[in-house]
Amino acid sequence: MSFQAADNPEDTRLQRLQEVLDSGTLQQAKRMLNALHPGEIAHLLEALPIAEREIVWGLVDEENDGEVLVHLTDEVRADLISKMDRAELLAATEGLDTDDLADLIQELPHTITREIIESLDLQHRSRLEAVLSYPEDTAGGLMNPDTLTVRPEVTLDVVMRYLRRLKSQIPPHTDNLIVVNRAGKYLGVLFLTDLVTHDPDDTVVEIMSLDLKAIPANWDDGAVANRFEQHDLVSAPVVDDEGLLLGRITVDDVVDVIREEGEHQFMGQAGLSEDEDMFAPVMISAQRRALWLGVNLVTAFLASWVIGMFEETIEKVVALAVLMPIVASMGGIAGSQTLTLTIRGIALGQLSGKNTRWLILKELAVGGLNSMIWAAVVAVVAGIWFDSTDIALLIAVAMSINLVFAALTGAILPLALDKIGIDPALAGSVLLTTVTDIVGFLAFLGLATLFLL
Amino acid sequence: MSFQAADNPEDTRLQRLQEVLDSGTLQQAKRMLNALHPGEIAHLLEALPIAEREIVWGLVDEENDGEVLVHLTDEVRADLISKMDRAELLAATEGLDTDDLADLIQELPHTITREIIESLDLQHRSRLEAVLSYPEDTAGGLMNPDTLTVRPEVTLDVVMRYLRRLKSQIPPHTDNLIVVNRAGKYLGVLFLTDLVTHDPDDTVVEIMSLDLKAIPANWDDGAVANRFEQHDLVSAPVVDDEGLLLGRITVDDVVDVIREEGEHQFMGQAGLSEDEDMFAPVMISAQRRALWLGVNLVTAFLASWVIGMFEETIEKVVALAVLMPIVASMGGIAGSQTLTLTIRGIALGQLSGKNTRWLILKELAVGGLNSMIWAAVVAVVAGIWFDSTDIALLIAVAMSINLVFAALTGAILPLALDKIGIDPALAGSVLLTTVTDIVGFLAFLGLATLFLL
Repeated sequence: MSFQAADNPEDTRLQRLQEVLDSGTLQQAKRMLNALHPGEIAHLLEALPIAEREIVWGLVDEENDGEVLVHLTDEVRADLISKMDRAELLAATEGLDTDDLADLIQELPHTITREIIESLDLQHRSRLEAVLSYPEDTAGGLMNPDTLTVRPEVTLDVVMRYLRRLKSQIPPHTDNLIVVNRAGKYLGVLFLTDLVTHDPDDTVVEIMSLDLKAIPANWDDGAVANRFEQHDLVSAPVVDDEGLLLGRITVDDVVDVIREEGEHQFMGQAGLSEDEDMFAPVMISAQRRALWLGVNLVTAFLASWVIGMFEETIEKVVALAVLMPIVASMGGIAGSQTLTLTIRGIALGQLSGKNTRWLILKELAVGGLNSMIWAAVVAVVAGIWFDSTDIALLIAVAMSINLVFAALTGAILPLALDKIGIDPALAGSVLLTTVTDIVGFLAFLGLATLFLL
Repeated sequence: MSFQAADNPEDTRLQRLQEVLDSGTLQQAKRMLNALHPGEIAHLLEALPIAEREIVWGLVDEENDGEVLVHLTDEVRADLISKMDRAELLAATEGLDTDDLADLIQELPHTITREIIESLDLQHRSRLEAVLSYPEDTAGGLMNPDTLTVRPEVTLDVVMRYLRRLKSQIPPHTDNLIVVNRAGKYLGVLFLTDLVTHDPDDTVVEIMSLDLKAIPANWDDGAVANRFEQHDLVSAPVVDDEGLLLGRITVDDVVDVIREEGEHQFMGQAGLSEDEDMFAPVMISAQRRALWLGVNLVTAFLASWVIGMFEETIEKVVALAVLMPIVASMGGIAGSQTLTLTIRGIALGQLSGKNTRWLILKELAVGGLNSMIWAAVVAVVAGIWFDSTDIALLIAVAMSINLVFAALTGAILPLALDKIGIDPALAGSVLLTTVTDIVGFLAFLGLATLFLL
């Protein structure tokens, strides 16, 4: 039991909740639930089928509602919000940080949004509007405008007295105070660790760090994540074109960006969104996935059409029909290996200019080498199976052509898609398979028609 | 230009380096390089083809070598280490944090490892050995044993004086001081933000937070990442079975875990490792990928063998050969959608016990619904194409069978693999495709043999 708990604490928490729901009283479940962190409650809600999810959501203390909603993935959040009434929604948004409020407010009905914005005081309202003026997936959309700033000329002692007066109003994840000039221009940061280790009579300008470069508000969230990763940051200031401080980004939001980016790449290959609710209603899931199946059907018919052009050939040599999926499938695998590597390179911003040419050449060489090895193996097996050197030769040549073509497509396709603004993580896989299917069938059946008949 | 820079700062940094390498002096490249953060240098090195990578690595200041190595992915790091001599390696490990040193030391030649360990003082050595005694992918392996601890009974003023004496020895990412009792047992944390906002005469026990639960050293790194994500943590203490403090985990290491987990799922589906060097030598890449192509070849021959059983049927009705890839491919897509969702659920620890049954039923329903829609579409198109209601009916029934079977396999297979300790992100995709190919061909050609001839 204790070993299992150490292995996967989430599993056991979920099981415990389900046991309590099944056998205990709701009161007991409520107590267990509200002892958890809002992030943990959100994680549990996502793991519950819809009917149970609604029951459990009803058990969450009202003061936790907002924080839990902030931690949920988009689809589950939208579902819960759609079932809340006006008063519940207003209560849930109260006391949220401005960046969380900005996230949440975009999902609420328009009338409630207005009501919430109007209920804010002037300062909070203008801060909220600043965040909302940037797209969600940029530094501006990620930032929290609630910052603690200090002037360079004051002493650390003054800073300490200022902080003691603020007390509980210090924003979460405050590892530094942002140093700005009179005009609000970003100058540097005063790390709390420096504040507590230096002489109280020192001034901020003597102690502050100039190493932390500010992030422009129009950077996209992937670039922000890379900056945090490469600099091991906990928080970073966000500035506008003139270098004026707009807010700060904290690592908890960056962690979410990185998690979502990973899930986007992984789930996108199956035509799924990273926000997909595992327990969405059957009708909704079926409808959404039908689209991807439909896209695939079109490409499958394309491949069939290519095969259809060679009906007469197949009629004469049925062995071709038996072997042709091998050529297509090997091309698909080789291509998707290159495609995957290239998509990651693009996402990390590691492919640009000169090294792209190098990558394409390298992938061609890898594809060529592997095509030789496996074409030989396939030729031997197929040759023995159908007792024909013609067929052995044929499949070897066709497979070589398809594997090299697959490597080329796998490298060039995502780069081209990225250039014209189409997400390669979503479209790359299905387009690549179309190419490798068609080239594979064309090469195999076409060569057979030319040389075998 | 400025817009592009805002769009992807990594791209332009890479381009700039390449321009300087092409046209400028090495001195200029060296200056540009060493102005960067070690994490940024590591990112650039990963993006360079091997020959250029070696040149650039030679330009990195020796005092940065260790930090850069720590930030590199395993494969690139191993490559660079293999080309460094004893003196360079010893110099690179100097001054590293204990957790980074522990990471690095496992990649070094055995003789150098011993030399490094022997050069440490007793305290550092025992701390390093503590980290090395846990597997790399557990909380114990992730932790840094260098911690700042305070006793509960002292006043904040004493804490402040203690910190001022330490000065630059404060570990990175210190957002709190860990409160332990005389025996070294973990009690709670004193957040720096609380330290600077409370009265210096208060004692630690009055101010410290009890909310931050310690992480057991044997938790796996995925569970640690989920805890950080759900609790929005910057750092967390790590304890042994008795609750004694062993060290602390910081968010920068957790960010790496989350990034690697995402890449593992994404790249695993193509049989690639998340540590794969984009610019590995052709021979090494080809060899590694050949394995996956070989696995796929075996499964492709299996599918061919199934088709081969129906050679006579295909000889009589060639339309079957034309249409059969459609049945297999649609099953593959439907199955991989379910597979992807299930793999994510397992990784997040959101699938356990009761809700698993629910998920399987839901996926079966989604599969059933979509099979009806697309079977109808395929039936109409195929029926018109080959002017045959028999073929229309046949492909519709075969596709329905395969889609439902695919959904079932997509849900059950990863759960079963996970249970017997095989990584579903690696093996799931290729096994699933085998099942959907075989079931698809069997259903389509088998039914045709029974009813069409």
